[in-house]
Amino acid sequence: MALTVVGSIAFDAVRTPFGERERMLGGAAVHFSLAASFFTEVRPVGPVGDDFGAAEFEVLERRGIATGDIERVEGGRSFFWRGRYDFDLNVAHTEDTQLGVFAEFEPKLSEQARAADTLFLANIQPDLQRRVRSQCEARLSGLDSMNLWIETARDSLLAAIAEVDCLVVNDAEIRQLTGESNLARAARAVMKLGPRVVIAKQGEYGAALFTEGGFFALPGFPLEDVRDPTGAGDSFAGGFFGYLDGQDCDLDEAHLRRAMGYGTVLASFNVEEFGTERIARLSREEIDERFEALRRMTQFEGLSAPAE
Amino acid sequence: MALTVVGSIAFDAVRTPFGERERMLGGAAVHFSLAASFFTEVRPVGPVGDDFGAAEFEVLERRGIATGDIERVEGGRSFFWRGRYDFDLNVAHTEDTQLGVFAEFEPKLSEQARAADTLFLANIQPDLQRRVRSQCEARLSGLDSMNLWIETARDSLLAAIAEVDCLVVNDAEIRQLTGESNLARAARAVMKLGPRVVIAKQGEYGAALFTEGGFFALPGFPLEDVRDPTGAGDSFAGGFFGYLDGQDCDLDEAHLRRAMGYGTVLASFNVEEFGTERIARLSREEIDERFEALRRMTQFEGLSAPAE
Repeated sequence: MALTVVGSIAFDAVRTPFGERERMLGGAAVHFSLAASFFTEVRPVGPVGDDFGAAEFEVLERRGIATGDIERVEGGRSFFWRGRYDFDLNVAHTEDTQLGVFAEFEPKLSEQARAADTLFLANIQPDLQRRVRSQCEARLSGLDSMNLWIETARDSLLAAIAEVDCLVVNDAEIRQLTGESNLARAARAVMKLGPRVVIAKQGEYGAALFTEGGFFALPGFPLEDVRDPTGAGDSFAGGFFGYLDGQDCDLDEAHLRRAMGYGTVLASFNVEEFGTERIARLSREEIDERFEALRRMTQFEGLSAPAE
Repeated sequence: MALTVVGSIAFDAVRTPFGERERMLGGAAVHFSLAASFFTEVRPVGPVGDDFGAAEFEVLERRGIATGDIERVEGGRSFFWRGRYDFDLNVAHTEDTQLGVFAEFEPKLSEQARAADTLFLANIQPDLQRRVRSQCEARLSGLDSMNLWIETARDSLLAAIAEVDCLVVNDAEIRQLTGESNLARAARAVMKLGPRVVIAKQGEYGAALFTEGGFFALPGFPLEDVRDPTGAGDSFAGGFFGYLDGQDCDLDEAHLRRAMGYGTVLASFNVEEFGTERIARLSREEIDERFEALRRMTQFEGLSAPAE
């Protein structure tokens, strides 16, 4: 089992009502990889500048992440994002985005990256996603995107979506993509494009899973302390695809539902602290404990666990 | 077992992308009563004008609802609400509200209404809610409210909340009431005011249940056809309190969770058609079938049912 993910490997500057960080490790492929690393072998693909140093590589390598496909561009600058969250932590306000070395990124996957069983195309320009997809057959593939690409590269995005098994985006984006306000109808419209699994991320409300004839939903894990939502969706996807890849299983309903649970759990740890701080020192035992708590919180029968 | 509910008994004019009705039976106490009538004996309390005729009474009486505490004011006009929903069915745009006979309402509960085991105070002015509460001891009591009363009658509302077991409001209202953006903290702040059960209604995302040390959440039942969301929250509360009253049970976690399920199911039927149209011809068998489908859709193990 092995998982390849392509996406931003970045520095983030983030301010929330609970604190701020001027320059911390971030990016979709980083959050995804750290979350998936608890379940399987992960290989992120993407460029960084020479500002990306030993300390950053160490965060990944301590979690056993294969960094051979992270391309270090001498003289370049890493992708940089600056944003803030106010009272409503569901809304990110972007203040600055600098593509840096990502502007010239031309993906060339290594042998090992191509041989992965699972491929995740994190949110980047859809033509880039397709160029990665064409290099990696993968038994299971997933894709994330955003409103920017729906608006500016719609045809490319539709082509990219047609080539994956599973679309994982925010529910508002599923509506925007399909022009359908009803989420169940919108998910069905996405399935007509190609994917057989559609996941609607819903921020603090959790996530919903649509398959042909199936539906499953989980609330966000209830937390009294949420400090920084950045990367929650990528951690969700990392937990989801990491678990599935690690199981080497069919995409049956029971495995998909458990994967939703692990996605929810990883996202919940992610938001407890800034950036990668919490996940970087997380243990598999903590994950399994919270998964059990989530299970107890969502079953009709059985006792509930105290909210953490 | 018997349940008393006080709240608006009204005519609604509603326009949605899927149709419109110029003058249909509505109001919080009506939606609540119809939903609860599948589980227990229900008695709505409130005034109507002489525009409220035999046809309207018949809708209630056919479901076995006791109408003796509906006070018909000769020469008066019933409460009237006009609103519309656009692409986003989660947002109601109020175009007109006419209190009619509700402006002079002074609640006087009958012997039977006072003797109820369960009391629900639907969304009306909080001093009125307290005057009803003082007349009915009830083993189990619940209260709904809205942003208007949080803004204009905050002290009265806090006093009313302190006198009930269970607060059932939208999640945004829990945040507004407590000034706390984190929902888990906000729910705990409400519990400090008095209630031991707090339910956050979350529109299409479902509802979350907070108890001391407990948490449970259900998604909205996935529907491809939602025609009119008016009354969904009241139908939810009707299913929730109707089930609990009919069980004559302790407020333990298992009963509360099942009650959340019945609330979710009744709300889902409510929105399938305009006003009371769907619930008026609903059967207990349909309710139990959908409850089972919801259970299958929210369990980690087990097969999922097709979305309806």
